[in-house]
Amino acid sequence: MALAIGVDIGGTKVAAGLVDEQGGIVASARRDTPSHDPARIEEIIADVVRELQASHEVEAVGIGAAGFVDAARSTVVFAPNLAWRDEPLRVNVEKRCGLPVVVENDANAAAWAEARFGAGRGQQYVVVLTVGTGLGGGLVTGGELYRGRQGIAAEFGHVTVEPGGRRCGCGGRGCWERYASGRALILEAQELATVSPAIAGRLLELAGGRPEAITGLHVTRAAQDGDEAALEAFRVIGTWLGQGMAALTAVLDPELFVLGGGVSAAGELLREPAERSLQERITARAYRQVPAVRLAEFGPEAGIVGAADLARRR
Amino acid sequence: MALAIGVDIGGTKVAAGLVDEQGGIVASARRDTPSHDPARIEEIIADVVRELQASHEVEAVGIGAAGFVDAARSTVVFAPNLAWRDEPLRVNVEKRCGLPVVVENDANAAAWAEARFGAGRGQQYVVVLTVGTGLGGGLVTGGELYRGRQGIAAEFGHVTVEPGGRRCGCGGRGCWERYASGRALILEAQELATVSPAIAGRLLELAGGRPEAITGLHVTRAAQDGDEAALEAFRVIGTWLGQGMAALTAVLDPELFVLGGGVSAAGELLREPAERSLQERITARAYRQVPAVRLAEFGPEAGIVGAADLARRR
Amino acid sequence: MALAIGVDIGGTKVAAGLVDEQGGIVASARRDTPSHDPARIEEIIADVVRELQASHEVEAVGIGAAGFVDAARSTVVFAPNLAWRDEPLRVNVEKRCGLPVVVENDANAAAWAEARFGAGRGQQYVVVLTVGTGLGGGLVTGGELYRGRQGIAAEFGHVTVEPGGRRCGCGGRGCWERYASGRALILEAQELATVSPAIAGRLLELAGGRPEAITGLHVTRAAQDGDEAALEAFRVIGTWLGQGMAALTAVLDPELFVLGGGVSAAGELLREPAERSLQERITARAYRQVPAVRLAEFGPEAGIVGAADLARRR
Amino acid sequence: MALAIGVDIGGTKVAAGLVDEQGGIVASARRDTPSHDPARIEEIIADVVRELQASHEVEAVGIGAAGFVDAARSTVVFAPNLAWRDEPLRVNVEKRCGLPVVVENDANAAAWAEARFGAGRGQQYVVVLTVGTGLGGGLVTGGELYRGRQGIAAEFGHVTVEPGGRRCGCGGRGCWERYASGRALILEAQELATVSPAIAGRLLELAGGRPEAITGLHVTRAAQDGDEAALEAFRVIGTWLGQGMAALTAVLDPELFVLGGGVSAAGELLREPAERSLQERITARAYRQVPAVRLAEFGPEAGIVGAADLARRR
Repeated sequence: MALAIGVDIGGTKVAAGLVDEQGGIVASARRDTPSHDPARIEEIIADVVRELQASHEVEAVGIGAAGFVDAARSTVVFAPNLAWRDEPLRVNVEKRCGLPVVVENDANAAAWAEARFGAGRGQQYVVVLTVGTGLGGGLVTGGELYRGRQGIAAEFGHVTVEPGGRRCGCGGRGCWERYASGRALILEAQELATVSPAIAGRLLELAGGRPEAITGLHVTRAAQDGDEAALEAFRVIGTWLGQGMAALTAVLDPELFVLGGGVSAAGELLREPAERSLQERITARAYRQVPAVRLAEFGPEAGIVGAADLARRR
Repeated sequence: MALAIGVDIGGTKVAAGLVDEQGGIVASARRDTPSHDPARIEEIIADVVRELQASHEVEAVGIGAAGFVDAARSTVVFAPNLAWRDEPLRVNVEKRCGLPVVVENDANAAAWAEARFGAGRGQQYVVVLTVGTGLGGGLVTGGELYRGRQGIAAEFGHVTVEPGGRRCGCGGRGCWERYASGRALILEAQELATVSPAIAGRLLELAGGRPEAITGLHVTRAAQDGDEAALEAFRVIGTWLGQGMAALTAVLDPELFVLGGGVSAAGELLREPAERSLQERITARAYRQVPAVRLAEFGPEAGIVGAADLARRR
Repeated sequence: MALAIGVDIGGTKVAAGLVDEQGGIVASARRDTPSHDPARIEEIIADVVRELQASHEVEAVGIGAAGFVDAARSTVVFAPNLAWRDEPLRVNVEKRCGLPVVVENDANAAAWAEARFGAGRGQQYVVVLTVGTGLGGGLVTGGELYRGRQGIAAEFGHVTVEPGGRRCGCGGRGCWERYASGRALILEAQELATVSPAIAGRLLELAGGRPEAITGLHVTRAAQDGDEAALEAFRVIGTWLGQGMAALTAVLDPELFVLGGGVSAAGELLREPAERSLQERITARAYRQVPAVRLAEFGPEAGIVGAADLARRR
Repeated sequence: MALAIGVDIGGTKVAAGLVDEQGGIVASARRDTPSHDPARIEEIIADVVRELQASHEVEAVGIGAAGFVDAARSTVVFAPNLAWRDEPLRVNVEKRCGLPVVVENDANAAAWAEARFGAGRGQQYVVVLTVGTGLGGGLVTGGELYRGRQGIAAEFGHVTVEPGGRRCGCGGRGCWERYASGRALILEAQELATVSPAIAGRLLELAGGRPEAITGLHVTRAAQDGDEAALEAFRVIGTWLGQGMAALTAVLDPELFVLGGGVSAAGELLREPAERSLQERITARAYRQVPAVRLAEFGPEAGIVGAADLARRR
């Protein structure tokens, strides 16, 4: 049985897993990252690889990192959380481990796991939307991960959906993730609770009466309890998701959208308005099947599984 | 030398060409289409194929049609100009001609010609935008034509760029082609000439003083003569093109946009503001090369050349 | 019985009437204006006054002109149709006629007629909206015509209702008259007929099949015949009227809106959606009576009647 | 010398002053309001009136209250902070005090003080905008307070400036106060500090590094220290103020706008961008004087001074 190791580098920890050919995690390991120094983190990676190699034969290592990875899946061009620029991660880790290494953007790796082993298994054209604090994702076309010319494809969060709209940290305005993300959900709920407290009773109760203290968990909990403002906040975010999904359908003609990320834990609260909005806005609906909209099956381990499998298929 | 025939079915004529491996047209033929009856048009196609076959050996026939073509490149699901539904064009023409046939959406065929032999030759990730009355195009990824799950990808004109904006014939609002197309250019120029006649002197002169009589050719001519309103109309359309191109870059990470279609005959009047707008709006600009923006090299014959080549590569 | 003369100066004619204290026109006169030269037009005004004076005793003359009139109701600061600047119309006409003269903006004069003798009689706070090619009107507060500091109040057409929206001849964008006027009605109907011809059958029939040939009369006629696109065009214009009326209600707290101008000849087709939109958007609706929305009772003679009455009350 | 008493009823206190004919406060008094019961608050009002009457002769009492006051200036139709409905405040207080009483909306009272004795003295057409948590104000036309048909005029905060925009507690969307108020200033600054922390260094320092902890005082302080994000937040709010002022100018043709309320304490940081935006957007600018934009001269005592003067002029 061919095993591969997947490594997920976050801002504060390195998590790794030994992954089999069906996407199952056979063993796992984790380390804190006391520093953002590349050499130090490479040493930590080598260390977890050694640990997981101890009892199994491993054929390759896949590393997922938040940031831009070059087209050769070798160098981290920019990693915002680690302040890395042009870091030759593949070569450095290969030297330390003696195994073939593939580097991938973490959202791409997670999307690959969903498309291969999760909600998208068996499908060829899959768009995975990771609805977390922001909005990211990955794209599978013709059964392969789509990476684009430079390896910076599928930056969905920065598609403009509202010209002149909300400011974005990318320097633009009206980016999709400013309307369809966990942060947007919170903003919407805070606005509703501020201007219409009468329909936000449960939400305000959870937040101690202070709209500015509302968190994403409050919104999900309140929505589950039937709070009208919280339900409306999910409808608004879902509607924006559906609008963007309709645009992606016009461009990509996929068979499936998978909704992942922390906000997708709210399940139907998010999926149902997103699907409805997609159906309302999709073009040429009379001549096509509307893509399905499903919830992700993997949780945070998606990045590890996807990175390992991409390394195995290198 | 392997020759293939490309056929372009329009609403009023069938145009065909014998195309060589370098995308050159060796011979051509054309017929009026007195009827939209599929059997009649299939007979006309067989007739032009026979004419072009008479003096050369032909290996395959590619047919481009305006409308949706299925994923097997065989059936015309819907052709608005011909009022066709689920027409098995490939099988019917193969029977009549005795040659292998491939059916493709006409904008996809034209885009393929540009990507293979025109402004995009040698490149792997190319987006062709056909700026005519409306806005269409095609997509080449990894050096192959991208067709999506059902063969209905690259319907760029119906990407929403302005939520709640101008109505579109597709039933939606705010579609890209309502802001970036020949029709949008005319509307913009008419509005400018109506509300600000003082800056639209040349434009109004060409249109006999009547804003509602302004045509696309008037706008191009007036812009070439320095008319401020006409130049502004091109800037507006170009800016919207650039906005959508920035969104496509976030999703697809291409190396090149090619601007084709009738409006692209205006050259730099269209390309320059489109490129500028793309550069201003593109995300992650510090970490990527901005895709190039070039004018198409083929004219109306692109569809014939592309269809023939796609048939040869079937 | 105190009679006064009202004079309405248009771009191509001078129309005048002898008006009694109940707003009735006892006699009328009209002259073409072969020139825009102020002295020539003043002579024509004196001439019609003399004609109407011949058989009745007249106490004053009121003149309505399209343009800005100063706060002293004496000088035409700017008249776009006549190309006048700072024309001392009162003094010049008084010299020629020997009667007291009052000059007023024509929309103000017409609004005064409606508020005093027409749809607003007996009411103290009346907003008259003149929905013609553009959008103008007048304002009556506390039973008196409201003129503002410089005599340039009630320029309703240039209230911004859509920031960054349609260009306006005033140099701004998103002015109310670009969304709620006869011109806007036509644009809306043309757009609908272009993108959704299936619901615009009657409208297109009237316009000879050409969306760009649609006129305001076509839209009214088609709407009366039940054409869905024409009805939608009226709903859109009415909805924008209502939105602006809601804003004016927040500022002015009026008891009545009167809809006049050429488009108001469509009656309920315009009034009903305007009233509904006002009711939906009005603020503090739980604590106030929603202003009534009525159709004007006067036609084109409103300006003559209003100017005469304002002169009598000078 | 004729003295009048002005009383300002807030949610937690009653503040009163003895006001002379020049708008000076000769003596003042204040009481906490332990309850929102109308009878209890009327007793407190009577009590402060007695205290201020002790040493001076008083001719009338003016009471300002947040809420809607009827056209007769007698009944509080609705007071949100006190949960009052149709409270006959004038009659009840007259019974207790034996003095003539006038009731007025508190923002109207404050606007009257500014127009009579403050930044607007000597002017006839004055719009006062109270930029506090929300946006309110008052309107003086022809030298008199404008009250409208039902006494609910000048509800500036709920003029729609952005159709479909931010939700408002009034149930609408896109109300002016959601874009031009203290709350809007904070939202804007929080957004900027979240998406562009690099230009919000001082602002984040004041807020302990937490965008959600930013207050209005932080924004003002940071702007005074040159923080680019805070300055931009003031520019945005000022620009929206100017847009609405341009709309009010088209309707009302005033000579002066006065900016009051808590946010106006920031002085030129607010006034300058508001004035610039008004100048850019005003219609018919070639034919009119642009209204002046001044900062209010009174602080929180404006309501007391205005209420007293309105009572004196009853």
